Amino acid sequence: MPELRRDPITGEWVIVASERAKRPSDFGRRPKEQEFDKNAVCPFEPGNESMTPPEILAFRHPGSQRNGPGWWVRVIPNKFPALAVEGSLNKTGFGMYDWMNGVGAHEIIVETPEHDKPFAFLENRQIEDVLWAYRARYLDLKKDPRLKFILIFRNHGRVAGASLGHPHSQLIATPMVPGEIAQEMEGARRYEDHRERCVFCDILRQEADEGTRLVSENDHFIAFEPFASKYPFETWLLPKRHLPSFASVTAEEQSAFAAMLGEALRRIHFCLDDPPYNYTIHTAPCDRDDRDDYHWHLEIFPRLTIAAGFEMGTGIYINVTPPEVAARYLREVELTASPEPQALGIHADSESK
Amino acid sequence: MPELRRDPITGEWVIVASERAKRPSDFGRRPKEQEFDKNAVCPFEPGNESMTPPEILAFRHPGSQRNGPGWWVRVIPNKFPALAVEGSLNKTGFGMYDWMNGVGAHEIIVETPEHDKPFAFLENRQIEDVLWAYRARYLDLKKDPRLKFILIFRNHGRVAGASLGHPHSQLIATPMVPGEIAQEMEGARRYEDHRERCVFCDILRQEADEGTRLVSENDHFIAFEPFASKYPFETWLLPKRHLPSFASVTAEEQSAFAAMLGEALRRIHFCLDDPPYNYTIHTAPCDRDDRDDYHWHLEIFPRLTIAAGFEMGTGIYINVTPPEVAARYLREVELTASPEPQALGIHADSESK
Repeated sequence: MPELRRDPITGEWVIVASERAKRPSDFGRRPKEQEFDKNAVCPFEPGNESMTPPEILAFRHPGSQRNGPGWWVRVIPNKFPALAVEGSLNKTGFGMYDWMNGVGAHEIIVETPEHDKPFAFLENRQIEDVLWAYRARYLDLKKDPRLKFILIFRNHGRVAGASLGHPHSQLIATPMVPGEIAQEMEGARRYEDHRERCVFCDILRQEADEGTRLVSENDHFIAFEPFASKYPFETWLLPKRHLPSFASVTAEEQSAFAAMLGEALRRIHFCLDDPPYNYTIHTAPCDRDDRDDYHWHLEIFPRLTIAAGFEMGTGIYINVTPPEVAARYLREVELTASPEPQALGIHADSESK
Repeated sequence: MPELRRDPITGEWVIVASERAKRPSDFGRRPKEQEFDKNAVCPFEPGNESMTPPEILAFRHPGSQRNGPGWWVRVIPNKFPALAVEGSLNKTGFGMYDWMNGVGAHEIIVETPEHDKPFAFLENRQIEDVLWAYRARYLDLKKDPRLKFILIFRNHGRVAGASLGHPHSQLIATPMVPGEIAQEMEGARRYEDHRERCVFCDILRQEADEGTRLVSENDHFIAFEPFASKYPFETWLLPKRHLPSFASVTAEEQSAFAAMLGEALRRIHFCLDDPPYNYTIHTAPCDRDDRDDYHWHLEIFPRLTIAAGFEMGTGIYINVTPPEVAARYLREVELTASPEPQALGIHADSESK
């Protein structure tokens, strides 16, 4: 069972994954290669369903069998979960320290049966179905009163923490509201107390007016580089409608979200030669997703630079590309329909088998 | 001039280094190599002093010339500073966004004339002199009323953000108290309000009593793995005397600090085969370093795993080595006097010329 331990100074929680405990030699050589093993059998491919735990959800062609091929989106429990779905929290103190069982959920959303198809180049309809799968899993898990927050995220490339090349996202549900989210909620509340306006709605207005940090826009979303971007080419997708939860979107909004997400990732792909990246969906905690005090959005972080001692010690990031410059490059990049080999470069080579 | 921009939601500051602005192609291929260029001329070596800006401080042999060889510790301004020492803050609002000039200081502490000598294997006396150089620079910079906090840190290995192999630390002074430090100060204050005791003093007591997370101890310091370690083999050095600032240590304490720092880094070196790491000195903000509400310490983070979408989205870290397990390995590792080639492995090879 994983453990949750609380830092007695900052109050932040840490997951200690005692089951997959690593000894010094397990870290071995730091992984030099940015590449995935091309010869390994992929557990996420159609036909290999028995290599994963039984599926939780799948969008399947009529007549296909559960845990067999015939799906186009498939959700499974993570085989090595960071937080485990069974058990009670059993909150305990060890002297001055706070501890609880690592209760939560950890799922994998396999985004396509095609191993070699980068997520950014899936059809809009397919991306939209991935988003519907996100939503279905969110709505199901939020019924569990032990779970307070659900993070949906995607790691692309080894440098961004992906351990398998087959396109997939992940979902981790936590038994507390995480520090980053609590801080963001608190900041939004502070702003609202002060001005009686939503900080995200104000950002939306200023970015649309100014235009210098705007990457693109459709009927329901803008994509832009935040004024205080921590990372070069950090890109946010912000819905125009003030809505606390990503699970409350309409079908039309979902379709616009899918289109904009694919486009933003393709811009990043072509502009930066398929960089490693993470994206995360920021949405309200489960028990307040019907309240008015948050504005959900998605954040994309290309992983182009390394956080070093200064960032770790201060929390202040050094961004070497002003967001206005990044936005211009992302706006102007030429988008072609598919990831051509010469444009894809090293990363696509390594991810395709 | 670098800029400081504030996140309108969280209130966190970001440095935008507009002078060293990077275009997409500058990120080029993500650096695959963990190695430093062995053929590059090292600007930190004796004889190459003219390659750096003029020195701010040097411990030199009698008769040697400023900005020439003959030093054993040398402090210089960073040639590409993250924050610049000239100018005024010029705080400005751009619509809803807060902005100021990137005023501060960014210095390099060259720790030894010997390019190939890992910091962990310097003589205790030499490490102590590096610590005295840290202190001298801190005391000088804190006279500048624009500077509110001074972070001293060390990046070891490319994966930890080092861009040159020659042993060096860095110092960055900021015109505000950074978020991480403010959060830690606030946490310490909250604990003290509640229990009328220092949280760090309580940690010291519990760790010394329990012993399971203790790595080593001398008259003035303990080295231990924190109960809620974010990183595998995260190691803290905590002074036994409650003191807000590292600059207030006695000569005897400094000597014990140097001995324990060298020893902790050698334990990490041998246990994990010379991993990349960062260390940072956590000390009170400049204008309250004579008050009683903080307890300085040093934090070492080996860089063995990758922070991915989950960590970035939640701030919750997944640690795959329980601190009790890490402490046992670090206590039991065999320490030999010097970094033998076979023990050093890949990393030493790459850092030696």
